[in-house]
Amino acid sequence: MNEAAITLDGWYALHDLRTMDWTSWKMISKEERQTIIEEFHQYLDKLQHAHDENNGSHAFYTVVGQKADFMLMILRPTMDELQELETEFNKLAIADFTIPAYSYVSVVELSNYLAGESDEDPYQNPYVRGRLYPELPRSQYICFYPMDKKRDGEDNWYLLNMEKRKKLMYDHGMIGRSYAGKIRQIITGSVGFDDYEWGVTLFSDDVLQFKKIIYEMRFDEVSARYAEFGSFFVGTRLDNEKVAKFLEV
Amino acid sequence: MNEAAITLDGWYALHDLRTMDWTSWKMISKEERQTIIEEFHQYLDKLQHAHDENNGSHAFYTVVGQKADFMLMILRPTMDELQELETEFNKLAIADFTIPAYSYVSVVELSNYLAGESDEDPYQNPYVRGRLYPELPRSQYICFYPMDKKRDGEDNWYLLNMEKRKKLMYDHGMIGRSYAGKIRQIITGSVGFDDYEWGVTLFSDDVLQFKKIIYEMRFDEVSARYAEFGSFFVGTRLDNEKVAKFLEV
Amino acid sequence: MNEAAITLDGWYALHDLRTMDWTSWKMISKEERQTIIEEFHQYLDKLQHAHDENNGSHAFYTVVGQKADFMLMILRPTMDELQELETEFNKLAIADFTIPAYSYVSVVELSNYLAGESDEDPYQNPYVRGRLYPELPRSQYICFYPMDKKRDGEDNWYLLNMEKRKKLMYDHGMIGRSYAGKIRQIITGSVGFDDYEWGVTLFSDDVLQFKKIIYEMRFDEVSARYAEFGSFFVGTRLDNEKVAKFLEV
Amino acid sequence: MNEAAITLDGWYALHDLRTMDWTSWKMISKEERQTIIEEFHQYLDKLQHAHDENNGSHAFYTVVGQKADFMLMILRPTMDELQELETEFNKLAIADFTIPAYSYVSVVELSNYLAGESDEDPYQNPYVRGRLYPELPRSQYICFYPMDKKRDGEDNWYLLNMEKRKKLMYDHGMIGRSYAGKIRQIITGSVGFDDYEWGVTLFSDDVLQFKKIIYEMRFDEVSARYAEFGSFFVGTRLDNEKVAKFLEV
Amino acid sequence: MNEAAITLDGWYALHDLRTMDWTSWKMISKEERQTIIEEFHQYLDKLQHAHDENNGSHAFYTVVGQKADFMLMILRPTMDELQELETEFNKLAIADFTIPAYSYVSVVELSNYLAGESDEDPYQNPYVRGRLYPELPRSQYICFYPMDKKRDGEDNWYLLNMEKRKKLMYDHGMIGRSYAGKIRQIITGSVGFDDYEWGVTLFSDDVLQFKKIIYEMRFDEVSARYAEFGSFFVGTRLDNEKVAKFLEV
Repeated sequence: MNEAAITLDGWYALHDLRTMDWTSWKMISKEERQTIIEEFHQYLDKLQHAHDENNGSHAFYTVVGQKADFMLMILRPTMDELQELETEFNKLAIADFTIPAYSYVSVVELSNYLAGESDEDPYQNPYVRGRLYPELPRSQYICFYPMDKKRDGEDNWYLLNMEKRKKLMYDHGMIGRSYAGKIRQIITGSVGFDDYEWGVTLFSDDVLQFKKIIYEMRFDEVSARYAEFGSFFVGTRLDNEKVAKFLEV
Repeated sequence: MNEAAITLDGWYALHDLRTMDWTSWKMISKEERQTIIEEFHQYLDKLQHAHDENNGSHAFYTVVGQKADFMLMILRPTMDELQELETEFNKLAIADFTIPAYSYVSVVELSNYLAGESDEDPYQNPYVRGRLYPELPRSQYICFYPMDKKRDGEDNWYLLNMEKRKKLMYDHGMIGRSYAGKIRQIITGSVGFDDYEWGVTLFSDDVLQFKKIIYEMRFDEVSARYAEFGSFFVGTRLDNEKVAKFLEV
Repeated sequence: MNEAAITLDGWYALHDLRTMDWTSWKMISKEERQTIIEEFHQYLDKLQHAHDENNGSHAFYTVVGQKADFMLMILRPTMDELQELETEFNKLAIADFTIPAYSYVSVVELSNYLAGESDEDPYQNPYVRGRLYPELPRSQYICFYPMDKKRDGEDNWYLLNMEKRKKLMYDHGMIGRSYAGKIRQIITGSVGFDDYEWGVTLFSDDVLQFKKIIYEMRFDEVSARYAEFGSFFVGTRLDNEKVAKFLEV
Repeated sequence: MNEAAITLDGWYALHDLRTMDWTSWKMISKEERQTIIEEFHQYLDKLQHAHDENNGSHAFYTVVGQKADFMLMILRPTMDELQELETEFNKLAIADFTIPAYSYVSVVELSNYLAGESDEDPYQNPYVRGRLYPELPRSQYICFYPMDKKRDGEDNWYLLNMEKRKKLMYDHGMIGRSYAGKIRQIITGSVGFDDYEWGVTLFSDDVLQFKKIIYEMRFDEVSARYAEFGSFFVGTRLDNEKVAKFLEV
Repeated sequence: MNEAAITLDGWYALHDLRTMDWTSWKMISKEERQTIIEEFHQYLDKLQHAHDENNGSHAFYTVVGQKADFMLMILRPTMDELQELETEFNKLAIADFTIPAYSYVSVVELSNYLAGESDEDPYQNPYVRGRLYPELPRSQYICFYPMDKKRDGEDNWYLLNMEKRKKLMYDHGMIGRSYAGKIRQIITGSVGFDDYEWGVTLFSDDVLQFKKIIYEMRFDEVSARYAEFGSFFVGTRLDNEKVAKFLEV
């Protein structure tokens, strides 16, 4: 029997990144824009309501640079709800003024690398539940990137034994812990759901901390030897006031 | 003489993934949309008829995330029928409101890695026939991905001898067997038909099982060392009622 | 002096793959479509005339899946004629309803790996001439893919000596020979003309034979260790009757 | 504990590269173009004002070849200001006549590889401040490219110890120093902000110096063995007069 | 000190490849097309004038296959002139009927690998000047491709010592010399200017010679082990008469 890692899985996650079609957005009348924005706010309010009721959570941020203009990250108990919310967004009038830029489908994940032995049902543990069904913070900045563990010649994560992987993940976790209070991290697993194996979403009120933690970790063996990274997206928070300013032309 | 694997080949398979052009779809009248949906339902009914008559089979699902909006998987006895059904779809009015997202051409395949010795014609064996000409299930979720076996330096699947490959595939199959009842798997071969060597289509009523089986298998040598994966697509079933809801704007 | 392979080179080859813009095609009137189809048939008739006169040859097939809708493969004595025929196609009205999907520029090639010693001018040998200036068959199915020989670390085809390459190509040829009568193969060389080094075009009346030969060859050292493949395109023959059906909306 | 490099971080940087939609630009009237250019000049004047006040800096250049038509590089104290300036540009009328070509998000960075030991706060050192918050020069030419340090088998920068990395960076710096007075170099770090790890922006009045320094460095071990490069962009300066000429049709 | 190769650098080079938008081109009137062609001819005449005056040179060719429809290669003493000529082309009416396909920015380059020792200023040597500031030939065919020298594990060109590189380049040059009179070759360096390190442009009156020389060279160690190739473009000459025929619809 192989020594596959065991995971705990929480809410399903959709990261939906869009580019604004500013040219078309400018071409319609101020009144039309206002109507479209109001409809969009109703959608956002619905998300906020689920967030408040702890039936899911979401985060809404700009993306700096041309890769996208904004990112909407949604957590829900089922994949079906994600599919419905994605389609509902597509049917909003605002969607006609956006161009799909990137998306990521995954599920909030905790691995057993750092878990102690216990007879307890972890899904009943309040601390574990708080991490599997997280209330996404309203920090000023977000950073999102997908990643794989490498399987390349001598550098093959999946051929390491459990003990070695545990040791490497422990060291890795120690760096993460030193950023406690500065960065909030959500790991989502995407094996079978999307092209990379994990999505990493970081929240902070100091955007520079994203660079510091990821650069420090890159010298750690688990990243240096075994990590393969996708695109990195960084952005600033869009609260209701900022949404209005962002969409005003 | 080399020790090439021998395959049994069944129905030809087309996975056709499309993105909805929601903006154009919203721009036409409700009546026009209704007419288009009715024509599309006639096409789906025809597929269902072939499925009922066991002259082929099909599956119709959403795709979560921006990679596509829906996936239509069609099985038929000949490549010609796939070509005709694809062209027929393209000539439907609904096709004008879709954008090609991805497709995959292959044939249902069983390999001889797990076969016992026998004088019997396997194509006459009812169990084998049930797997070569499968009735696709109506499970709640689908997962599709194409893959290759690696040919890279020391990690070259095609230079392993048959005995080694059989052993590796046996271990791999053991993991698969432990998911019996939870996941239904269809392997289609695409050497000479498409860019990857195999397509893997999984069906389940529990979407998390896709992640569990693929992640567990990734620690298995045949995946860890020898598998190269394409994109992963996951979605929810579109029965007639869901189709109506999906296309309603 | 290095031991470069020597080639015999015949007719120049253009594989031109196009996607139909079905939406635009449906939008014009039946009469307009008829006029456009007639003009296109005149172009195809001209190709057929050259084929009949043995001034070149061509093959016209659908492509299954979204990579393209049809493939037109044209052979001519000069590169200039290919350029002119390509431009002539682009100026046809039908071209306005197609989108370029992929193309490949090459020349029919025979290598000296399998040649015996002889004082004869091979270009005067009728058998060789039949292979360098081939009449493309009207089989039911086509399979086309470009490929390279690998130059990667230990697996570097171009650093093998001639004797080793001859041995490997001989074994490879033996597999090919076992498919005689089932598959017709045209090798075209594209070094200096296109991004891969060779194009392989297979014709058969049994589409499954494409998968069988390519899969069997993949276990052969010359493929397993040294082949890198581009995209695979498979399709069904478009004779005049099928063209009419294909373009009828 | 790993030996991660420590960085000093200055102004945030956005490289924004755009392609002109010349066809649309020509289609509007001379008066409309003039109005749009005036609005764009107000935007550029605002950037110049911040530059003059040392609240940031910017550089505006053409890009030679089809990768883009112009590059606007902006430095600001916060990521939020970059996001706002990017969105402000997108809302300008001129933006409707541009197509996004490439962008890069990073922060001006100095590493500790070349630093001596000191108790001083480097952020108070005027020399260091001049490099972290640089006034971008108005040289005739710009060269921009992103890059990574390699993590590939034996060639893994992040597994080298600090002493070895310091030695390699020192040798590398010596080459750079020999170009002092000919080339001005700005290094920006992008770990966690964009897909590559660093952006390199060079300024010179002699475009050939870009080629000379990068080619010479390529033979240096730190580049030869450990560098992976993205796209290279080269262009000429757009002062106000050149902007007018560039946009005149 | 490293043993970087030293280069002599001549005229700057822009390879500009475009695809015709034939559909739009057919939609305008014959008179409009004629006006546009005349304006384009004035641009080409200006290039010809610079060519005649030896203030630069250019070559104008079709491209066979879908990668592009034509290639305009321009040599000029400064990068600024290339930028101006590119922008001038974009402002021509003909440009509205073209789609950018690929471009390459480089400078004519001679390396010191094959140079003897001398006290002479090479830039004053008439033979060297003829190669640095070449009059591009009016051969029937062109072949263009960009390339890199590999830096991959054991196969790292930039870690070889100068003596080894000289030896390899000498052998390589011997093959080239055997094609003297059949092929004219222009090497342009693009380190710091574009994504590959060199552009190779070949001219010949026998298109098959491109395939012969590149295939023969591929078995040479410098190509077999150290070369990485980009796309290959091949085409036929567009003299004034052919331009007229090419653009006639």
